[in-house]
Amino acid sequence: MALSPADRLREIQPFHVMALLSRAKELEAQGRDIVHMEIGEPDFPTPEPILAAAEGALRKRLMHYTPALGLPGLREAISRHYRNRYGVDVSSKRIVVTTGGSGALLLALGALVNPGQEVLVTDPGYPCNRNFVQFVGGVPCAVPVTAATNYQLTPELVERHWTSRSAAVMLASPSNPTGTVMAQDGLRDVLSWISRQGGAVIVDEIYHGLVYGTHIPTALQFSDDVFVVNSFSKYFQMTGWRLGWLVVPEAFVPHIDKLAQNLFLAAPTPAQYAALSAFDSATIAILEQRRAEFQRRRDFLVPELQKLGFQIPVIPDGAFYVYANSAALAPDSFELTRRILEEAGVAFTPGIDFGKNAPEQHVRFAYTTSVARLQEGVQRLAAAL
Amino acid sequence: MALSPADRLREIQPFHVMALLSRAKELEAQGRDIVHMEIGEPDFPTPEPILAAAEGALRKRLMHYTPALGLPGLREAISRHYRNRYGVDVSSKRIVVTTGGSGALLLALGALVNPGQEVLVTDPGYPCNRNFVQFVGGVPCAVPVTAATNYQLTPELVERHWTSRSAAVMLASPSNPTGTVMAQDGLRDVLSWISRQGGAVIVDEIYHGLVYGTHIPTALQFSDDVFVVNSFSKYFQMTGWRLGWLVVPEAFVPHIDKLAQNLFLAAPTPAQYAALSAFDSATIAILEQRRAEFQRRRDFLVPELQKLGFQIPVIPDGAFYVYANSAALAPDSFELTRRILEEAGVAFTPGIDFGKNAPEQHVRFAYTTSVARLQEGVQRLAAAL
Repeated sequence: MALSPADRLREIQPFHVMALLSRAKELEAQGRDIVHMEIGEPDFPTPEPILAAAEGALRKRLMHYTPALGLPGLREAISRHYRNRYGVDVSSKRIVVTTGGSGALLLALGALVNPGQEVLVTDPGYPCNRNFVQFVGGVPCAVPVTAATNYQLTPELVERHWTSRSAAVMLASPSNPTGTVMAQDGLRDVLSWISRQGGAVIVDEIYHGLVYGTHIPTALQFSDDVFVVNSFSKYFQMTGWRLGWLVVPEAFVPHIDKLAQNLFLAAPTPAQYAALSAFDSATIAILEQRRAEFQRRRDFLVPELQKLGFQIPVIPDGAFYVYANSAALAPDSFELTRRILEEAGVAFTPGIDFGKNAPEQHVRFAYTTSVARLQEGVQRLAAAL
Repeated sequence: MALSPADRLREIQPFHVMALLSRAKELEAQGRDIVHMEIGEPDFPTPEPILAAAEGALRKRLMHYTPALGLPGLREAISRHYRNRYGVDVSSKRIVVTTGGSGALLLALGALVNPGQEVLVTDPGYPCNRNFVQFVGGVPCAVPVTAATNYQLTPELVERHWTSRSAAVMLASPSNPTGTVMAQDGLRDVLSWISRQGGAVIVDEIYHGLVYGTHIPTALQFSDDVFVVNSFSKYFQMTGWRLGWLVVPEAFVPHIDKLAQNLFLAAPTPAQYAALSAFDSATIAILEQRRAEFQRRRDFLVPELQKLGFQIPVIPDGAFYVYANSAALAPDSFELTRRILEEAGVAFTPGIDFGKNAPEQHVRFAYTTSVARLQEGVQRLAAAL
């Protein structure tokens, strides 16, 4: 008898951007030059002081398991980061070091969601979220969001979609794929309303730090009952190291400890020692220069895309993404991204990877390459459209 | 309203060894000397050639995400390892690089088990297994195993406990906590019988390589339909790096790829580059010296424990554990481990962490410390018992 895969695999779609990336690499292997605007990963290497800390730890042979909740010194460094950057007291006891933001999402949903319960997510939104919810037996409830609300949930939308079967709401600010941030009042009101329902709010702050021309608060300023997911991947540019963190209400720490012991044992040790230098002033100076560079890229790319006929109704305040409406240029964004890759050698992501809310009308551009390459991409797009 | 944790957290017991380890550290902080025989982690640092490979990768700034299935070169190196060590052809396409053996277990169970389906596990066994099964909504079916079958499942036990609700069987050879290996005929017969039922077999080979005075086959020599979990943690002594692998039937590769993309993105990049040197002859030479040292420790410890009154009906062939019956020395092994830690400063693990099959009569000793320290531990035990 042939072995069958579990039913949950039928629910999970592969990311279309992966097929696009494979095709881009095939074309590159054939000698074609491809402008990459599809990749959700900073192009910068990990800053030198973080590398030096990793090398120092290797030389000291620090490579055994850490406690499941993370190195105490790193949990304390993250706690100081909240005090320094946001002026908020977050006890290091509530901070759990995780295997990337992915590990934090799995722990939070695993600790909160029973099989059959619903979790509100935005559409468009980070595609793994709905699959994480399904993996723990939950039911993702996709709430369509539009430019009218900055592509974010609002208190009204949450109240309209919350039911007796709901366990949690997932927010992301800045958001992937839209780069938009949530209004401070809206965030505070959602937190207090959901708390009154006995539900949970999981806030993805993975793109915090990569915000341009504004400062945004952490959800931890408004509530101690919130679950905040963060990562060393994006602002700190440590993608491949697989390191993130999760802040949980104090009563959940023993629960998360048990889950982390069983599911992960602990986050990678070399990454944890490396990250001890992530908050040093020398590191932050490098990261802030790079943030300014991301802002220059955004300020270049958004008006150029608008000139080409892409509609960008909300200027993204953060992350490194532009979510654009391509309906005036092509009826099907999936076909558009395939055609432009083949004909013009420019790779960007079709809306279909981010949900079912008019995906054929949308695309995502990532400005994870230099302004010179973005210029080249824009010129090729102009010729091909 | 207070937020409640998900129901699954009630099912998960914290590891008692963690409380024991905390207490041991408290005693050490008070100046007490503690002999550690509770820790399931090699005491050796990661071998130099692996460290050098990691440092080389850092200097080359190789720290971005890898493909979800792992670095192609590492998958090929693992494939060559199967050819060189076992004489078996395992295509690199079927090899998935994972975030530790833990990541491999979560992917395998996530790809195989539907909510409500049963998974056969041994009791005693690796305690995370039953929690992984529950995490994906499955029902662990604990099969008591005794010295009569080397603490392993047999074809007869599997047939007796397999039902229409069963999805998979988990085997581990060498086993944690018993260090025993599965008879080759039994393994082959379980694989072919389960295959005829349309079920899956997951074989934990995490302690392969750490086998003394014998050679054991991989399950991949008997079947292409098996799921084999392995790790760089134990034999390769890369615990904190969090790197393992999973071999799957070829038809499952796209399913595992989708799951890995969503749950993990990819395994840690520095660890993957480091592991490229794990199979070099210089590394293997170091590891084989250490294997000989583990064997010396086992050969010292087992008869000494027997002299003290511990019953060890099966001499462990592998891993770095001795699973001993303590009933002649104390009625409750949990109390025994607590008393010996307080009175004699020797830490070892009570049976309760490994299941419900007479746990109060059993303890696990780990020989992850030098013969000199084991001698000290044995002397203190002799005085305290």
